Amino acid sequence: MELISENRVFGGRHCRYSHSAATTNCTMTFAIFLPPFASKENPVPVLYWLSGLTCTDQNFMQKAGAMKLAAKLGMAIVAPDTSPRGEGVPDDEAQAYDFGLGAGFYLDATQAPWSKHYNMYSYVADELPSLIESNFPVTGEKSISGHSMGGHGAMVIGLRNPNRYVSVSAFSPISSPMNCPWGQKALTKYLGEDQSAWRAYDSACLLAEKTHEIPLLVEQGTQDEFLVEQLKPEALINAANASDSSLTLNMHEGYDHSYFFIASFIDEHLTWHAEYLGLV
Amino acid sequence: MELISENRVFGGRHCRYSHSAATTNCTMTFAIFLPPFASKENPVPVLYWLSGLTCTDQNFMQKAGAMKLAAKLGMAIVAPDTSPRGEGVPDDEAQAYDFGLGAGFYLDATQAPWSKHYNMYSYVADELPSLIESNFPVTGEKSISGHSMGGHGAMVIGLRNPNRYVSVSAFSPISSPMNCPWGQKALTKYLGEDQSAWRAYDSACLLAEKTHEIPLLVEQGTQDEFLVEQLKPEALINAANASDSSLTLNMHEGYDHSYFFIASFIDEHLTWHAEYLGLV
Repeated sequence: MELISENRVFGGRHCRYSHSAATTNCTMTFAIFLPPFASKENPVPVLYWLSGLTCTDQNFMQKAGAMKLAAKLGMAIVAPDTSPRGEGVPDDEAQAYDFGLGAGFYLDATQAPWSKHYNMYSYVADELPSLIESNFPVTGEKSISGHSMGGHGAMVIGLRNPNRYVSVSAFSPISSPMNCPWGQKALTKYLGEDQSAWRAYDSACLLAEKTHEIPLLVEQGTQDEFLVEQLKPEALINAANASDSSLTLNMHEGYDHSYFFIASFIDEHLTWHAEYLGLV
Repeated sequence: MELISENRVFGGRHCRYSHSAATTNCTMTFAIFLPPFASKENPVPVLYWLSGLTCTDQNFMQKAGAMKLAAKLGMAIVAPDTSPRGEGVPDDEAQAYDFGLGAGFYLDATQAPWSKHYNMYSYVADELPSLIESNFPVTGEKSISGHSMGGHGAMVIGLRNPNRYVSVSAFSPISSPMNCPWGQKALTKYLGEDQSAWRAYDSACLLAEKTHEIPLLVEQGTQDEFLVEQLKPEALINAANASDSSLTLNMHEGYDHSYFFIASFIDEHLTWHAEYLGLV
């Protein structure tokens, strides 16, 4: 691991690191916030945050306003990048914002030329937590959250690994990638035409399959410009009802898809995760 | 005024506007945060925030994490751009980050070709407040704050207009532009070689000249990469001592020049201004 930068913030530390990742076959960058007093003797639990299309490890750390409360709660936050990057990592041929670089969709690609690098599912669910837990003063306890494409990623990874995460939340998530243009484009290219392979990366499908016990909290603005075409939170409601799974979906009048929405409600999510992480 | 965008945030509104400005002879952009329940019947006071080199109206609004408390306090925040911009507005010939576009230094230039547009002092002290007070549900009560070049601007404008502002604060300000490379470059080009004209834009000079009653609060990180060469807060201490003026300077161990520092202490500044604005 190589330290890129370090900032003191709210008495804790915000650091960016790069490291060579086996899952994505490239150098990955992530950011970590460590609250004050986190130490080997006093390790802290971790909230993983997955960002949306076009983002990097920096958007959440700079714009969400989460660190004040995280510092107070004693919670670390880890924000990975949204895709593999660097020399040799292929991008969408038209450099579209919704596929390729900045748009890894938190899955393990099976199709050439994507499958060599685009393995963000394994990176986020396996490799990154191992790295974090080996190198920082954190416990093994973790929660996961994210925004938009990252909300999809958080729900998929959380629902598929309920033994690893104590709670899952999402802001404005892509609820059913199989049933929206962003998701259909990405799933077709990364996973191929056979839609049976898509189901493992569709939160609504996963939620409907069986009764999930892991707590799931979703925040959605009613004026979100992507609500109707891409996000479709009603798919989550239907799925949770069908399987009798846990889901709290809060609709917020007038809020849009931006970080202003995330900032407005991030403290509620931190407090909610903190309860499952044993911090409050 | 033309509305560029509007976001709901913390129950209030974040809006960006452009308008034709007489002082700067160009189209200017600003951002305004209006807290919940601000209305013609319930007008709110305003904190003006001046940003630093390379910034726009957006840096503070996106990164400072100020709106949660401002919403609670019932305080509007207005963030102007850091220079005139647009067709016909001259820039540094080398497009340096510390002069020209993004680097207006909150002064009224007297030298060609800068004097036609680079009149950010008059824009921030006169034209913008008139516009705000005519078009939004705000009172005439205002405070002013800023970061780095904007900390310089806030102190200069506040110290020179103590009848217009009730309190002045700054993060990591350029304390004495006459005595640092950033300031000397800008003052020479905007105001000419005659240093007597520079004094009206040097906070340390202004503070030393006479006893100032306006409350002044300054925050500075000890690991600020610009501390020794550019910022020199000791000049403010010496000046305030010389004139028996009010000054609180807080040094913060380990903090740097970034928005992570501003975010860490912005709530203290909002609370401090709120007291003078009659909000607490």
